[in-house]
Amino acid sequence: MHPYKAGPLLEQIIIPQDLRDKMTVEQLPQVADEVRQYIIDVISEIGNSHFGASLGVVELTVALHYVFNTPYDQLVWDVGHQAYGHKILTGRREVFHTNRTKGGISGFPKRSESEYDTFGVGHSSTSISAALGMAVASRYKGEKDRQHIAVIGDGAMTAGMAFEGMNHAGFEKDANLLVVLNDNCMSIDPNVGALKEYLTDITTSHTYNKVKDEVWKLLGKVSKFGPDAQSVVSKISSALKGSILKQSNMFESLNFRYFGPVDGHDAIGLAKVLEDLKDIPGPKILHCITRKGAGYKFSEEGNPTKWHAPGVFNKETGEIVKIVPKSPQPPKYQDVFGHTIVELAEQNEKIMGITPAMPTGCSLTFMMDAMPDRAFDVGIAEQHAVTFSAGLATQGLIPFCNIYSSFMQRAYDQVLHDVALQNLPVVFCLDRGGLVGADGATHHGAYDIAYMRSIPNMIVSAPMNEAELRNLMFTAQTENHGPFSIRYPRGNGVMTEWKTPMKAIPIGKGRKVSNGEDIALVTIGHVGNFAQEAILSLKETGASVAHYDMRFVKPLDETLLHEIFTKFDKVITIEDGCIMGGFGSAIVEFMADNDYHSKVVRLGIPDKYVHHGTPEELHIDCGFDATSIAEKVKELLNISTSEEQQSQSEVG
Amino acid sequence: MHPYKAGPLLEQIIIPQDLRDKMTVEQLPQVADEVRQYIIDVISEIGNSHFGASLGVVELTVALHYVFNTPYDQLVWDVGHQAYGHKILTGRREVFHTNRTKGGISGFPKRSESEYDTFGVGHSSTSISAALGMAVASRYKGEKDRQHIAVIGDGAMTAGMAFEGMNHAGFEKDANLLVVLNDNCMSIDPNVGALKEYLTDITTSHTYNKVKDEVWKLLGKVSKFGPDAQSVVSKISSALKGSILKQSNMFESLNFRYFGPVDGHDAIGLAKVLEDLKDIPGPKILHCITRKGAGYKFSEEGNPTKWHAPGVFNKETGEIVKIVPKSPQPPKYQDVFGHTIVELAEQNEKIMGITPAMPTGCSLTFMMDAMPDRAFDVGIAEQHAVTFSAGLATQGLIPFCNIYSSFMQRAYDQVLHDVALQNLPVVFCLDRGGLVGADGATHHGAYDIAYMRSIPNMIVSAPMNEAELRNLMFTAQTENHGPFSIRYPRGNGVMTEWKTPMKAIPIGKGRKVSNGEDIALVTIGHVGNFAQEAILSLKETGASVAHYDMRFVKPLDETLLHEIFTKFDKVITIEDGCIMGGFGSAIVEFMADNDYHSKVVRLGIPDKYVHHGTPEELHIDCGFDATSIAEKVKELLNISTSEEQQSQSEVG
Repeated sequence: MHPYKAGPLLEQIIIPQDLRDKMTVEQLPQVADEVRQYIIDVISEIGNSHFGASLGVVELTVALHYVFNTPYDQLVWDVGHQAYGHKILTGRREVFHTNRTKGGISGFPKRSESEYDTFGVGHSSTSISAALGMAVASRYKGEKDRQHIAVIGDGAMTAGMAFEGMNHAGFEKDANLLVVLNDNCMSIDPNVGALKEYLTDITTSHTYNKVKDEVWKLLGKVSKFGPDAQSVVSKISSALKGSILKQSNMFESLNFRYFGPVDGHDAIGLAKVLEDLKDIPGPKILHCITRKGAGYKFSEEGNPTKWHAPGVFNKETGEIVKIVPKSPQPPKYQDVFGHTIVELAEQNEKIMGITPAMPTGCSLTFMMDAMPDRAFDVGIAEQHAVTFSAGLATQGLIPFCNIYSSFMQRAYDQVLHDVALQNLPVVFCLDRGGLVGADGATHHGAYDIAYMRSIPNMIVSAPMNEAELRNLMFTAQTENHGPFSIRYPRGNGVMTEWKTPMKAIPIGKGRKVSNGEDIALVTIGHVGNFAQEAILSLKETGASVAHYDMRFVKPLDETLLHEIFTKFDKVITIEDGCIMGGFGSAIVEFMADNDYHSKVVRLGIPDKYVHHGTPEELHIDCGFDATSIAEKVKELLNISTSEEQQSQSEVG
Repeated sequence: MHPYKAGPLLEQIIIPQDLRDKMTVEQLPQVADEVRQYIIDVISEIGNSHFGASLGVVELTVALHYVFNTPYDQLVWDVGHQAYGHKILTGRREVFHTNRTKGGISGFPKRSESEYDTFGVGHSSTSISAALGMAVASRYKGEKDRQHIAVIGDGAMTAGMAFEGMNHAGFEKDANLLVVLNDNCMSIDPNVGALKEYLTDITTSHTYNKVKDEVWKLLGKVSKFGPDAQSVVSKISSALKGSILKQSNMFESLNFRYFGPVDGHDAIGLAKVLEDLKDIPGPKILHCITRKGAGYKFSEEGNPTKWHAPGVFNKETGEIVKIVPKSPQPPKYQDVFGHTIVELAEQNEKIMGITPAMPTGCSLTFMMDAMPDRAFDVGIAEQHAVTFSAGLATQGLIPFCNIYSSFMQRAYDQVLHDVALQNLPVVFCLDRGGLVGADGATHHGAYDIAYMRSIPNMIVSAPMNEAELRNLMFTAQTENHGPFSIRYPRGNGVMTEWKTPMKAIPIGKGRKVSNGEDIALVTIGHVGNFAQEAILSLKETGASVAHYDMRFVKPLDETLLHEIFTKFDKVITIEDGCIMGGFGSAIVEFMADNDYHSKVVRLGIPDKYVHHGTPEELHIDCGFDATSIAEKVKELLNISTSEEQQSQSEVG
């Protein structure tokens, strides 16, 4: 079925019980090596996967499943892109090569996929809350022996939600919760913030050493009193270590018992400490030091951000396979954003850039490199990112706050309450608006049009191509328009010559892209290109199809809509977003308010969670790819499809 | 204009510059006393206001405006219901008695109201992020002398957003930020969580004392070496206090310089320490111990939750004025929830109750008292509350997670990502859905119908009255329906006999309330009662008005809607929620999808922020009170209004 071969120990492990039954603790390092090798073998060939994070927790994964009685004991992986080893050890080795492909396994833990996936994840920092819920449920049911483990990265620990979970957990003193802090100093990009420095600090025992030095210095004066005093000094040092350092630890301050730091790549050591922790009741935290990409020469020595999700690579040479196109290709929307914000910021000193932990992903890195005092990575902290931007805006600045559409869900209240209510000129660049592909249900930017358009004062826009993105960004910073959101998709645009001169677009002004008489396609954002393709494919049918790119969901171009509904009795709205409450919904609201009675068909993401696959596959599934649009046009215009024609002629 | 008289010092203070110009530091306690008395004088008479929180920070407020050069120095009040003293000192003393009434001043700081209100607030824990934004902007502009102060309560500090702000601020080492931690051990209810215990701990210097004791004990052995050794011991103690305690402090761990705890009711002491802090660059935190309701005998000695917002009271006796109705009145929806969840939980052991810091407000207190192991106040932590509930639900329990509609905006991602995506049976009780009245724009539950109905798997319901609320709660716990939301308004219901036997309602089943032939009113939730009133008032016109209470926004009762749109060519939808994307929008989506062409008018909250007033006033403003509904019916049926009739007959 597939060419990937497990090592001799891993081959014997189908589920974690095999690991526990068949392996000695001394064999764990080899099991870990074989898991790592299996990940390297598969991921280097299939590409399109995460990599460094899973490599960094291979030993931890093996030790956890060895020590704990999974799935009875409940293991929650935070974010989950580090859970490949977990998947391989929990019955999914033979399907691991289908990772993130349509119909294959998900790139994240998923409850519907396995009983070992106790909680579906994708967005960061949910694990402590979820595991605490499980632990409190077990306590309530009297399952005293049941263990609940949350594995969370130091990056995820910076999100407020993790702190909320810790604050509550520290109060549920008899809940059986172990938090494993997987400290690799990284989010996708290098981790930032005060907590990161603190973790480094306790890892290097900086505070402890500093205090110890001071006390030694003082006690040095006591030494003249002889060897007896020296033994007292030694006892004081122990007391400092035992009580001060532990009690003064930030996690201990939150009523967690703190253990560590320990070497996260010592599988045997980890198994021992985890075994010990089993018997300690209440909330506790184990601080593990790991290296992202560990155990594979090239990722370990290379740039961890690059090796976060490297694509296909040559596992022997570490060379990442780059597909060199024959002709120039359109750029990623992300890079268009990155270059354009620098270009604008050079002209307009009011512009600032903000990202919550996605500088590489959204290409704010360009601005962070070019003008470091004006571009901020604030950590995994969407709520803070938005209100921090609001604070900047009160001072006359124009922050461009770039957040992935699905992560912006975390800051919905801040957009409503801190920005829009005060009508502050924050520009929200909603990256990855629409279906994102392989990351799947947790990461699709499906809801932003719906949740943004309900917000008073908010301008909601989406460009059809790179030039439009640049124009919208230009427009957003020219005057104080209040809050202004611009959403664009993940991946490549459609223009090879995209560095067009920028110009302002009147707010709420749509445009006619194609003339037509029989039916109108009314689109928002990049799906306008699908509409264009559909029109091209319909040419031979003789259908006369108009196309309007509305550009703005809010305010709607009412003049254009009056034109459309006066002229057309058939209209198809198309959006890469949820149709429940989305762009099409805004159009039918307009129609109802203005007594138009055209037939309107709304295409977009249906009212269900869409799972993973390529964007193209998912567009087809959701029925708004070019072919589906063309079919819908034919259906509404009663044009028989070619298959129908053929079948009719066969019958005839 | 009004009968309230300021004391002799306060009388001289119109704006903070007067305070700084005319008062000596020794006069600050008297200024504080006069501010306190003014608050007591006004609030005891006007009622409908917050009280205890503002009393607790009177000295702090006076000291802050005395020391800092407001409004150039920027003061951000977290939440803001403690900012009455601030309002009185910043040009609003003479309008203070209009607090929270329509056209009067807001109960919260508001940028549009005063330049001293640097940031609009209402929801908790935004102040650090906002003030950091201001501080970074000042740094960027080279305003080195400018100070930025966030005043935040210990309750608000438990919300993750505050931690996100701290984590970033600790990284911006040269931003001029002072966080004043107003530690009164209270949210509206007593504060909970590990952080609270930690703050108590450092306040009582528990850790420090424990460590000091141990070291003293050990060093006691050194004492035999004579008085010289004793002086060394003393130096060691200082070192411990100076370096260990400070460096080990949780806030110091986040790179904040920590000062305190200090007495928050010593105005002179506060002025001195604030003056000193001005010269210390970078992020710093001042830990102030205050008492909610301080300085007024009855609130100081009484229950602080009761005195959070006591209504009208006799300031001499501390007696809270209770209006005793002549006949039995309908209960608050909150109490219906509180009694009903206990009743259900007694029958169904799977039910658990969760509130983020609003046990009294939402009446989960009833369950917390009756079954403390099954009801949780998790602190101001909406995100955690939702995902903790999801964790409970994975273990077969049925959590009722009660969150105010406007606060649920904070947990939108968790609802989507942790509950609905996994189709977990969490029951969301959205309290204060719709216009809440005096709390104003930040607290109206305007958006939940729109943001909930876009979420796949989510059942979205709203009861028209108490019996329906009980039935929906009963329905939500009978089977696994996946996520189930029930929204109901703030305040009293409509049934004096509300303890009706409960029965299950088929999911998505609406009901016809009144027959009629000419037009249909289609309502969701409590506004169905306005529709009933409107129908009653229309009786004499002869208009035949049908009324349907849909009960569910999602799934919609399509059978009933087919009936409605087949029969009626005029339909009015009514909701206490935003019309942009809300319930009416769902109805016009249905209409478009099913080719109906009735005239539909959507009544609800328009696409703008609605400010404060009584709910009745705001319903009228928004045009969905009974009279507005009746007028709209007449307009659609071409029935001339009585005024028109009269004016016509006058003309005739």
